[in-house]
Amino acid sequence: MVASQVAAVLSNLQTLYSDHASVVSMNLFVALLCTSIVISHLLEENRWMNGSITALIIGLLTGVIILLASGGKSSRLLVFSQDLFFIYLLPPIIFNAGFSVKKKQFFRNFITIMLFGAVGTLISCTIISIGVIKFFKEMDIGSLDVGGFIGIFPYCPLPFQTGLIHVSASYYFLLLQFSAIGAIFAATDSVCTLQVLNQDETPLLYSLVFGEGVVNDATSVVLFNAIQSFDLTNTSPGIALHFIGKFFYLFSASTLLGVVVGLVSAYIIKTLYFGRHSTDREFALMMLMAYLSYIMAELFYLSGILTVFFCGIVMSHYTWHNVTESSRVTSKHAFATLSFVAEIFIFLYVGMDALGIETWSFVNDRPGASIMVSSVLLLLVMAGRAAFVFPLSFLTNLAKKSPSEKISFREQIIIWWSGLMRGAVSMALAYNQFTKGGHTQSRLDAIMITSTITVVLFSTVVFGLLTKPLIRFLIPHPKVTTSMRSGQSSPKSATTPFLGDSFDDSPKGGQRPSSIRALLTTPTHTVHHYWRKFDNAFMRPMFGGRGFVPFVPGSPTKRSEH
Amino acid sequence: MVASQVAAVLSNLQTLYSDHASVVSMNLFVALLCTSIVISHLLEENRWMNGSITALIIGLLTGVIILLASGGKSSRLLVFSQDLFFIYLLPPIIFNAGFSVKKKQFFRNFITIMLFGAVGTLISCTIISIGVIKFFKEMDIGSLDVGGFIGIFPYCPLPFQTGLIHVSASYYFLLLQFSAIGAIFAATDSVCTLQVLNQDETPLLYSLVFGEGVVNDATSVVLFNAIQSFDLTNTSPGIALHFIGKFFYLFSASTLLGVVVGLVSAYIIKTLYFGRHSTDREFALMMLMAYLSYIMAELFYLSGILTVFFCGIVMSHYTWHNVTESSRVTSKHAFATLSFVAEIFIFLYVGMDALGIETWSFVNDRPGASIMVSSVLLLLVMAGRAAFVFPLSFLTNLAKKSPSEKISFREQIIIWWSGLMRGAVSMALAYNQFTKGGHTQSRLDAIMITSTITVVLFSTVVFGLLTKPLIRFLIPHPKVTTSMRSGQSSPKSATTPFLGDSFDDSPKGGQRPSSIRALLTTPTHTVHHYWRKFDNAFMRPMFGGRGFVPFVPGSPTKRSEH
Repeated sequence: MVASQVAAVLSNLQTLYSDHASVVSMNLFVALLCTSIVISHLLEENRWMNGSITALIIGLLTGVIILLASGGKSSRLLVFSQDLFFIYLLPPIIFNAGFSVKKKQFFRNFITIMLFGAVGTLISCTIISIGVIKFFKEMDIGSLDVGGFIGIFPYCPLPFQTGLIHVSASYYFLLLQFSAIGAIFAATDSVCTLQVLNQDETPLLYSLVFGEGVVNDATSVVLFNAIQSFDLTNTSPGIALHFIGKFFYLFSASTLLGVVVGLVSAYIIKTLYFGRHSTDREFALMMLMAYLSYIMAELFYLSGILTVFFCGIVMSHYTWHNVTESSRVTSKHAFATLSFVAEIFIFLYVGMDALGIETWSFVNDRPGASIMVSSVLLLLVMAGRAAFVFPLSFLTNLAKKSPSEKISFREQIIIWWSGLMRGAVSMALAYNQFTKGGHTQSRLDAIMITSTITVVLFSTVVFGLLTKPLIRFLIPHPKVTTSMRSGQSSPKSATTPFLGDSFDDSPKGGQRPSSIRALLTTPTHTVHHYWRKFDNAFMRPMFGGRGFVPFVPGSPTKRSEH
Repeated sequence: MVASQVAAVLSNLQTLYSDHASVVSMNLFVALLCTSIVISHLLEENRWMNGSITALIIGLLTGVIILLASGGKSSRLLVFSQDLFFIYLLPPIIFNAGFSVKKKQFFRNFITIMLFGAVGTLISCTIISIGVIKFFKEMDIGSLDVGGFIGIFPYCPLPFQTGLIHVSASYYFLLLQFSAIGAIFAATDSVCTLQVLNQDETPLLYSLVFGEGVVNDATSVVLFNAIQSFDLTNTSPGIALHFIGKFFYLFSASTLLGVVVGLVSAYIIKTLYFGRHSTDREFALMMLMAYLSYIMAELFYLSGILTVFFCGIVMSHYTWHNVTESSRVTSKHAFATLSFVAEIFIFLYVGMDALGIETWSFVNDRPGASIMVSSVLLLLVMAGRAAFVFPLSFLTNLAKKSPSEKISFREQIIIWWSGLMRGAVSMALAYNQFTKGGHTQSRLDAIMITSTITVVLFSTVVFGLLTKPLIRFLIPHPKVTTSMRSGQSSPKSATTPFLGDSFDDSPKGGQRPSSIRALLTTPTHTVHHYWRKFDNAFMRPMFGGRGFVPFVPGSPTKRSEH
């Protein structure tokens, strides 16, 4: 996916000449981004709203205005491009997710997170796929518009494409096609989750839902690519095994690549001690190497999302501690800001694109179909998520000894609910699957696009708005879980001596009293414990990290910031 | 120029499909960027080298390797695009120039800087144009290859284009055509200047040369656009007046737009007090509004470079003081880093592109012509610069009363020498003028491109390498000029109480003793004095700025950073 964008940007630049309309669009879009930021700031105190919903609604309103201004001809400022999304917008979001995640929480719950993120996504995808197959068979949408299926597989081998119309009833074809739909709707929206849950109030829930969201993002994209590149002409019984093998290969290779690039960056900066000369060089190197990990993954046909996520984790664990004070502040905030702008951009766009008149006019003659499909998809999303959250929670609870570590039923409900939102990843995958050059080719394509938009809008706005009240209802006084707090070891919440609480002016702020930190001394006999031993004995001396760079003493005075 | 790129990026993304070669190029390029940063860090102590030259040489070496590896077919990883340059690379560099310039120095020498930057560039452009006309007439290159001239005016009115071959000897045509060459070679390379002069050792020289460089960048581009869009069919006597009028309109309107956008950003952030909720929002808003100023200038057909430069100055004077501590550190370093990466990118590219086999093969049969043209251009560049530096210095010296404020002859030589380097702006303008879709169309185009490359390479490497020794020779013990130091008021050198000298770990560091600050109290009876009165009485209470946001007291302890 990277390739097409790169090629487009780099070689097609000169071919098109001045188009003032594009400059106008660009201006409007940047102005809208600013407006969204200002308005979401003004609505910060509002207990219902969050940045995503604000941007979505501003996008929708702008869409309406443009629609009216253009006399019902267009509501779009920009053509949605999954390449723009996958090259520019997604990497900073996922990298910052890894960079700012509370690593201790993440790794303590690693098995649970992987179970939820990988196995859960597979379960969810399967249930949605089966549901869609059953429903489409009953609705007769599939056989009604067989021609549209061709648009679904633009990348699949030609012999299959040409034989498509004849074998449209084929079990394998439907399986694959609806698996793609399953993968699209199994992709939860971790961006929205971030804004709804509070890392300090509900650390366990946050790390579970958010960690799951990231792994889920990666799983969906890996799954989707695996389905798209799947060779249907070869349908031997070993195919499932091959599929699983490929999936695990992608998973482990991508993770490894991210870890290696992260470690290399830590090693370079530690060895050469960059800060001696320039903070800018350190930060530039961090940024470039993070991006390099992403495009290297694309180079080796791996999952860039997973790679950049683990690169972010490694960078925050080692590299971030090797740089100067100003580089730490800069990298923490600059990465967060890039991620933040990318999020607003995505939601603004999704809102604006929702009224794309072209796709809606396609389904105009059968509005019922689109509404039906959307409702069914929403129900399937809910069912698919329920089908793995509760059983898998039960399984992980079996493995935990102390009752305080177990996931209570109320928490399970919150985990289930918080992951119902669908966002930009679903949109991007749906556009990839059902459009060609930004345009839908058939009625089925149009129905799938409008349904995806409806599901994304409905789940983000309605489910999103209800999440905060739901959490307040189920957990009236947010308990501080017994799990370790990692207040000191990640860029997210680090309070370095000199910067006081200027580090905590983020919306996720609200530092707990430090009495909890006493718990840090309690030994924990888990894999994590052995990892820390290994980390301290071998990794940190080699790659730097907290405590292995000259510590700068200073007054820990808390300053008032008004 | 923005328009074409935006259009290309936004609408053509979907049309091109996966091209693995592009991903390979992209990977190599990002890896080379990292390598350049590491190597230029290692060569930091070297008194001859600087980042630009390092990147240029790495680019050249890579070009040679690719040339050998591809069997002499290609040396390019990416196709040079002046749009990529004008949209992504130039804005951060120019914005950061404005953001980090020492404003007091800049405005104290404002008239001199404007004289050098605007009038000087015009003189330089005129002299180079006249020289080129004379030389080309004698060399017979112009009449030898008249067909090539068509490629030079791709944007000029059709009636003129079609009549081109017949009127090729026309005085007006040659004047305009060679004016474009003049504008191309009148564009000094402020990026390289930044790395050669030291803001703390030679503040007057730095502010003069650098300030002039920025105004010169803007002037060249404005001039070049004015020449390109010049209507030749109308050659009335009032045309020169019209030209000057247009130039001043562009200049003042662009400046005003930048100032207004900067003030709006300051006002928004001051009024809403963004930091209360999130540092990321503040920084995001600063970044987006800075970019908005640039594309708004393009929207109104103004000079984005001037706009974004003045937006940077206003933002550093007002907005920067209204944000939280962490936003200050982040914006200072993140903007500097973006600018730094863009610079390295440009030099790496210029180095790599220098061996573009296609253009060189064009001039293969007449290698003498290219060498001749390059030498003549280099001499003209030197003569053109001498023709305004010494007379204009004489003029400004006449206006100054105290001898310490006057520009000494040795300083004049340094000013003359430091502005001889030609860089990415010249390259971008030359590509804009002499190529179509990244390819040269005729031998004359090829000669002009190869000559531009030669001039850029030679001036950057040879002149660049000699600048440091020259300054050391002419000013053995860098004097601290009597002009006011502005150590406290710009992001470049601000030492906020909490951050100690972590702000000064940049290569430009080396803070002078604060005894000079006593001079700050001396009243100066200049325009600057009245401006400060106005600023304190009206502007700062309205838009914030230093002293008008809650001051945070803290220990000014100097910390050792090792």
